Amino acid sequence: MFKESHVDVLIIGAGPSGLMCANALAGAGVDFRIIDNRPVGVAAGQADGIQPRTIEVLQSYGLAEPLLKDGAQMHLCAFYNPGPDGGIERTGRAADVTAPTARYPFKITIAQASIEALFVESLKSQGISVDRPIVPSSLEISQDPAELLDPSSYPVKVVLDHIHSSDDAPEQEIVHAKFVVGADGAHSWVRKTLGFTMDGEQTDYIWGVIDFIPDTDFPDIRNRAAIHSENGSCMIIPREGDKVRFYLQMADKDVMDPATGRIDKQKVTAENLINTARRTFYPYVVNEPKEVDWCSIYIIGQRVASKFSKHDRVFIAGDACHTHSPKAGQGMNASMNDTHNLAWKLAQVLRGRADISLLKTYELERQKYAQDLIDFDREFSALFSGKPRTLENQEGVTHEEFLSAFQAFGGFSSGIGVHYMPSAIVDAIHQGCAPNIIIGERMLPQIFVRAADARPMELQDMLPADTRFKLLFFVGLLTSEQLTKVRRLAEELELPTSFLQKYGSPAQGKAQSTFDIISIAAGHKDDVNFLDIPSTLRTHWSKVLIDDTDVTGRLGGGAYPRFGIDEKEITIVVVRPDGYVGMIAPSTELESMDKYFGSFLIGKTLNREA
Amino acid sequence: MFKESHVDVLIIGAGPSGLMCANALAGAGVDFRIIDNRPVGVAAGQADGIQPRTIEVLQSYGLAEPLLKDGAQMHLCAFYNPGPDGGIERTGRAADVTAPTARYPFKITIAQASIEALFVESLKSQGISVDRPIVPSSLEISQDPAELLDPSSYPVKVVLDHIHSSDDAPEQEIVHAKFVVGADGAHSWVRKTLGFTMDGEQTDYIWGVIDFIPDTDFPDIRNRAAIHSENGSCMIIPREGDKVRFYLQMADKDVMDPATGRIDKQKVTAENLINTARRTFYPYVVNEPKEVDWCSIYIIGQRVASKFSKHDRVFIAGDACHTHSPKAGQGMNASMNDTHNLAWKLAQVLRGRADISLLKTYELERQKYAQDLIDFDREFSALFSGKPRTLENQEGVTHEEFLSAFQAFGGFSSGIGVHYMPSAIVDAIHQGCAPNIIIGERMLPQIFVRAADARPMELQDMLPADTRFKLLFFVGLLTSEQLTKVRRLAEELELPTSFLQKYGSPAQGKAQSTFDIISIAAGHKDDVNFLDIPSTLRTHWSKVLIDDTDVTGRLGGGAYPRFGIDEKEITIVVVRPDGYVGMIAPSTELESMDKYFGSFLIGKTLNREA
Repeated sequence: MFKESHVDVLIIGAGPSGLMCANALAGAGVDFRIIDNRPVGVAAGQADGIQPRTIEVLQSYGLAEPLLKDGAQMHLCAFYNPGPDGGIERTGRAADVTAPTARYPFKITIAQASIEALFVESLKSQGISVDRPIVPSSLEISQDPAELLDPSSYPVKVVLDHIHSSDDAPEQEIVHAKFVVGADGAHSWVRKTLGFTMDGEQTDYIWGVIDFIPDTDFPDIRNRAAIHSENGSCMIIPREGDKVRFYLQMADKDVMDPATGRIDKQKVTAENLINTARRTFYPYVVNEPKEVDWCSIYIIGQRVASKFSKHDRVFIAGDACHTHSPKAGQGMNASMNDTHNLAWKLAQVLRGRADISLLKTYELERQKYAQDLIDFDREFSALFSGKPRTLENQEGVTHEEFLSAFQAFGGFSSGIGVHYMPSAIVDAIHQGCAPNIIIGERMLPQIFVRAADARPMELQDMLPADTRFKLLFFVGLLTSEQLTKVRRLAEELELPTSFLQKYGSPAQGKAQSTFDIISIAAGHKDDVNFLDIPSTLRTHWSKVLIDDTDVTGRLGGGAYPRFGIDEKEITIVVVRPDGYVGMIAPSTELESMDKYFGSFLIGKTLNREA
Repeated sequence: MFKESHVDVLIIGAGPSGLMCANALAGAGVDFRIIDNRPVGVAAGQADGIQPRTIEVLQSYGLAEPLLKDGAQMHLCAFYNPGPDGGIERTGRAADVTAPTARYPFKITIAQASIEALFVESLKSQGISVDRPIVPSSLEISQDPAELLDPSSYPVKVVLDHIHSSDDAPEQEIVHAKFVVGADGAHSWVRKTLGFTMDGEQTDYIWGVIDFIPDTDFPDIRNRAAIHSENGSCMIIPREGDKVRFYLQMADKDVMDPATGRIDKQKVTAENLINTARRTFYPYVVNEPKEVDWCSIYIIGQRVASKFSKHDRVFIAGDACHTHSPKAGQGMNASMNDTHNLAWKLAQVLRGRADISLLKTYELERQKYAQDLIDFDREFSALFSGKPRTLENQEGVTHEEFLSAFQAFGGFSSGIGVHYMPSAIVDAIHQGCAPNIIIGERMLPQIFVRAADARPMELQDMLPADTRFKLLFFVGLLTSEQLTKVRRLAEELELPTSFLQKYGSPAQGKAQSTFDIISIAAGHKDDVNFLDIPSTLRTHWSKVLIDDTDVTGRLGGGAYPRFGIDEKEITIVVVRPDGYVGMIAPSTELESMDKYFGSFLIGKTLNREA
């Protein structure tokens, strides 16, 4: 007799993508299970760069602090090219993060195990753990269209094999799930079972990677450094403590078995990699390391899955649907951001607040991003793996070409430039009333002072990933005329026909409500009275902000002009639960706000067939 | 038979002062015990304001983060005075912290219990707990001068009564201690046993205090607010969550028993206090609170003990040696800073690195501070308890008088202005080579970028309270000429006769060493090579800083001119283990550095009679 059970969401795979999903669903109070086929989590190596946007996302779950404390930070990137004597010399140093609005203007490196531990600890504090080792052995999706459209049905049947020991036969279990998330890595069983293909190609470039404590006279050993030498290329990534990682371009002869034409794993030794580094670093000296943490080799393969979802019931995420060149520092980032995008949508559908069609926006938003990333990455990798320009090699890559690609790719790979296209949840119709808050991009970081106590607050910290839509009311400069407008708007919003009442659910308590309201006034902290904001737009004393500097004059201020918002109007900015701007409208256009939310939320009077 | 034992330091009292001492000694690896006569720690009420300097100090022990996260912050202070119609009106708002160099430009309020919990948790993580309930019943100090001067002797004998239950007789124990710290509160048994008097006087002002969640239309309810009305004065202190504290000036008739002329505790009710508030706040409305946390009443008493130490073997600290008006927000601050001052001195003496005479500087530095604080406080309290100036009362206190006293007192009570006078450990002879780093005051906060990886670092975070003296080498702008000077200095410092070799102990590992070295160059992060700094002045890659901005241009830079340091010279700044500047010298005056350390440290070749 099989054990048989029902669950709202079954997550297959407890890497960064699956764990991000689990943590987000746990925070949202969703019924889910997370399983993994490994008996324990990862140890050394693997992906470990955290991009600026990912730090912002982790911060929105309250998880960034340990990273900021324990990780290595990359602020500068140094560029080295062949000098006149054949050895390398520095061409320049530049900011490593080229996105000017990044809240955290650096990247972090930290072991993947530490990232996973963050999520595991957070889950543990909520009484949840990963079930392991469990291997899924079959997955069936109902073919009944009515069942697939009914959000309360359990149309996915998965058979799980519990591995108790290598000798015994596994114990089998049947799980009926409303939704399944396949976050089971590059060799994804879920993807294969769904029959999705991975599209893209493998390059000929072979790279070695080694984590160690260096002993060298190379002056940029604690910066990110891109070395382009006549003897091959190297990327330095500083790591936690005194460690660094080298990505080293390998010559075929160093790693290939001439008999088979394949990589000879015997040749991939720390000694071999360090010798390659020595040739690349000349005239700088790289001494025999005392301590080597890990080394490996890989051939760049960049692919995207043909589909990210089946019937909006089974989704794949992370490495299961895209692979990148490790040097691009994307592995964990795109993976965690996939499920960050998906989790709030699942939560809203499962609560009965959003139409199941909302889930279509997952593939729409994330597949395009994965493809764009790979297109950038391909160009960047080709430049980096190519020969540098020298007197003898006039066909080679110039520093300027490389730097330009580095900066363009950096703006994108940082995650800050992610721009989701128009859809049910991205409506740019009124972009004009805040031209510099780009609809479809993540809400900009900005420091305001709290009206009640003049405490400087980072706006992003008031936009936690708690599944609520944040309504930012830019109420302008509070003249008596403007206050009249603000009061009139508050009265309109109290009408049962307003979108706030139709789609909101204030009675059900904070965690379960659909909206969170923040009012932001222009003006000066010495004058503004937070009690002037009507209570509809002031749900707590802490929810009224002023676009002014803090008491030192060093933090905050200038947001109205920076965002392009008129302080004589009232402008409403809708920030999605994942931190992306979904809609902006002037207060005079509440009907377009109603239309926006009506296109994917289920209103109290809304016809479900809409 | 008595249980009998020996310990290096016995701390009596586990309030903020005793716990700060315990935590600092634990970090220093000192053998100590901490006892308390209460079965458990404090609950509600009591002192709970944390001043800007105290936040810096807690940060130097790695303990500030929870406060910054959980405490209420006071950024603004609002001032209210009688208006033309008899009710109060706002005269203005001003920055609550008036010390311009404060790293944290605000005060924090948090329950004393939360502060104590910080220390208790920190101690617990080191396997240490408070022994309680234990009451000391006798204390004897040896009269033998030789024994008193021998740092390895145990000249203090204390009998402790372990309280097992109220019925049983206490179990007695004898402890022989090298040193005793009496941090046993305002009614200190240690102080009384030593026969020290408390000097100062009690005023006639009676104040009520109440912690509650307010319901009011008063617009500065989340700011610190000083209300001067014709019906009495009130100070508002916002607290954690939605709570606030009111300090209310009480009329005699409201709290006195007319028969006895004494305070009638029956009259001190929340209702009575709220009614007083209502009269003071008119025309603003204070509604019946739903929740009252705590209320009490006090008469201002400001006193300082005649002595802080007996034979430099028994010390008193915290409320045991000074009491203040609660409104000054000093209680915990002066107390914690007392033992912060004392702990590193005890550790250095116990390690045999410092002469026992170093301990004399405790009373010298802290008694003067306590007295200065009370002198300020007296003036401020008189102004605040006095009648405001109105048309009818031309003798009253004007807003300008009050604001001026508020700001002067604020600069001092913030702790930022603490200035220790010249002594063995404060030598201002070369003040001229860095005129804006005031010798005797705490080292200024300043952001530098780390030379190796361009990460912005707050200098104060590189000055942890780890008992080491921090030697800041301002090595200037690294021209080839300057580099020659730097190398020559490094060679000098390597000589066995240099103060670094004589008083340093690099071989004994980080935690036990006497010095920590940080080099700070002028120049630009794009050019400086951290490997240019000789290894004597670069003990780790992370220990070389540059006076430049971070990659965004928003943080750091400008320290050389701000401090008044010449970038063509080499200037050495000595920061004491408690964060105070002890000595500054040009690199050409190493002999005065030698003299400074020789006056209290025990060198490898130093004659102990020096």
